[in-house]
Amino acid sequence: MLPRLEKLHTALSQAGLDAAALNPGPTLTYLTGLKFHLMERPVVFLVALGKDPVIVLPELEMPKVGLFPYRVNAFAYDENPSEWDAAFRKALTSLGLDGKKIGVEPRQMRLLEFRHVRAGAPEADFPDASDALASLRLRKDQTEVDAMRRAVRVAQDALEAVIPSIKIGMTEKELASELTIQLLKHGSDSEMPFAPIVSTGPNSANPHASPSDRGLQRSDLLVVDWGATVDGYISDLTRTFAVGEVEPEFGKIAEIVLQANEAGRAAGRPGVPCANVDKAARAVIEQAGYGKYFTHRTGHGIGMEGHEEPYMRADNMQMLYPGMAYTVEPGIYLAGRGGVRIEDNVVVTKDNMDVLSDMPRELRMVG
Amino acid sequence: MLPRLEKLHTALSQAGLDAAALNPGPTLTYLTGLKFHLMERPVVFLVALGKDPVIVLPELEMPKVGLFPYRVNAFAYDENPSEWDAAFRKALTSLGLDGKKIGVEPRQMRLLEFRHVRAGAPEADFPDASDALASLRLRKDQTEVDAMRRAVRVAQDALEAVIPSIKIGMTEKELASELTIQLLKHGSDSEMPFAPIVSTGPNSANPHASPSDRGLQRSDLLVVDWGATVDGYISDLTRTFAVGEVEPEFGKIAEIVLQANEAGRAAGRPGVPCANVDKAARAVIEQAGYGKYFTHRTGHGIGMEGHEEPYMRADNMQMLYPGMAYTVEPGIYLAGRGGVRIEDNVVVTKDNMDVLSDMPRELRMVG
Repeated sequence: MLPRLEKLHTALSQAGLDAAALNPGPTLTYLTGLKFHLMERPVVFLVALGKDPVIVLPELEMPKVGLFPYRVNAFAYDENPSEWDAAFRKALTSLGLDGKKIGVEPRQMRLLEFRHVRAGAPEADFPDASDALASLRLRKDQTEVDAMRRAVRVAQDALEAVIPSIKIGMTEKELASELTIQLLKHGSDSEMPFAPIVSTGPNSANPHASPSDRGLQRSDLLVVDWGATVDGYISDLTRTFAVGEVEPEFGKIAEIVLQANEAGRAAGRPGVPCANVDKAARAVIEQAGYGKYFTHRTGHGIGMEGHEEPYMRADNMQMLYPGMAYTVEPGIYLAGRGGVRIEDNVVVTKDNMDVLSDMPRELRMVG
Repeated sequence: MLPRLEKLHTALSQAGLDAAALNPGPTLTYLTGLKFHLMERPVVFLVALGKDPVIVLPELEMPKVGLFPYRVNAFAYDENPSEWDAAFRKALTSLGLDGKKIGVEPRQMRLLEFRHVRAGAPEADFPDASDALASLRLRKDQTEVDAMRRAVRVAQDALEAVIPSIKIGMTEKELASELTIQLLKHGSDSEMPFAPIVSTGPNSANPHASPSDRGLQRSDLLVVDWGATVDGYISDLTRTFAVGEVEPEFGKIAEIVLQANEAGRAAGRPGVPCANVDKAARAVIEQAGYGKYFTHRTGHGIGMEGHEEPYMRADNMQMLYPGMAYTVEPGIYLAGRGGVRIEDNVVVTKDNMDVLSDMPRELRMVG
């Protein structure tokens, strides 16, 4: 973990920052190997150039301070929120951070933590340091890739175990629950990357549907978007199924999305911008006349988080490098009728691309 | 859902606020019946006095707008983050909110959403509206209490199903995973309130331990802190077990914590301040000479969230009213050796208190 902390110092320095303030989340876990809860009591980890890191946390979390893999100065507060600002003030003052540039992660940090940090350094600037911090975790090492490969294996085996039990009338919630059980039985960490999306019929036309009490009906499309966590690293896959015979257009869009998925996977390699992955997949769908039904980007980075850098968007000129891992997940959504998405997980290798997932991608019949 | 929106208008008006800005989380779900993902794309729901509510969201979430239980004006943005501010500006301008008082929930809102909202109303104030917003959900109605009662039942049945399989050598992670499987099998929603805490031996002295690869050893204390979700409402319980014979002091602290739990439960009723619940439980532990080993408050509110108002702290003079639901969870933690916590869920009734959980609280022997 010490090399990771040193990498952070380098990244901060290159970004012209004096420090970073982190709350519980993947970056904090990456840097410390420890998990803190994101709750109503603020926990903030402060890393300032040339200093030992500092953590501000509730008294009851103090036992965790002994588990840090390097020297850390802790400032604990008790249960009375009116005294929390004082702990933050001491912590930020100990690092001489008032008036300095303290980088934050806006996607992770809440106003809860931010307002206490700012109270402790009222003259500081708090620039968005997402890029500098994301860069730490952007290129996965072999251990990280191995964990992701196992997370893909667990996810695939779990869904295969569920498929035979899929029946007409089974609700989306029931299927999601059975899938979660199988994920755990097959070895997922109990902290799932996300609750599985199981969407049927018209619901499948909503890329971000939550499982409902709708029962599976004949001629439905069924979209399952699910993943596992292994050693803190995640998988994030999607497959689409046909519940018996489906209308011909559903078969057609499934074929187009499959080709788009193949094109997207084939487009990634070192030295190519992320945009190319999106463009390759999107071109297939646009040429087939369904461009306006593909309403999202082609993919996102994965690792400790379900969504992280790099993002596969048409306007993202960020280059791919070995070790970057991401999803390829084109889809076509016909509002009120049904949708198809096919999502795989890939990692950029030294001279090409490794596809971690290999479950059949064709529109399989179930139920 | 419309009465809930009207309740919010009243609460905002009473708090002297012009509007509220909410991101995905329990308050948003409470007001809309809908679930939005908390992700790298900001979703913000704006409620301004005397206007129809407004939502800013990614294009791909637009299908959800049709599911709102009342009229909502939607402002969608596409995948390019550099254009998101423009959508927020249009949304906030449509409500005339610049220069106004827009209440926020600092525990829920991230800098991601906040900075976009502020970009859309640069002259607005953003006071902490946690109390006004929490007040909406503070007193549970019968439907909500029924769901919590079922969530307690599911949790208790799931743990009872796991107990016979607890064996020496089983790791904390294995036990947590088996418990999660049983929670789902017994009917928990697949979105768990929190990942179960399973802590053994010295780890049990850390109230917020995460399950590790440590195997269960003879003479360990074993703390299980777990819960289920039913229809979006949660339970949050803790029981402590003895792995075979344990040292006499462990038996002694288990007895003290049990008495503290009983005293805490007995102290709550309408018209009594939250502080009394904490003081009643704490007095038992202090009189037994273990006061400094009880490092946290006695409880917290529960409902749609694992931790919400009201908080059972010695300095919280908030009165209890019928429908308030909370945990009673005193503990004693002997660093490096072991800890005991006993947690129940209660709801204030018209003239007394209803204890939702009834699983045996004594130090049961397992393994």
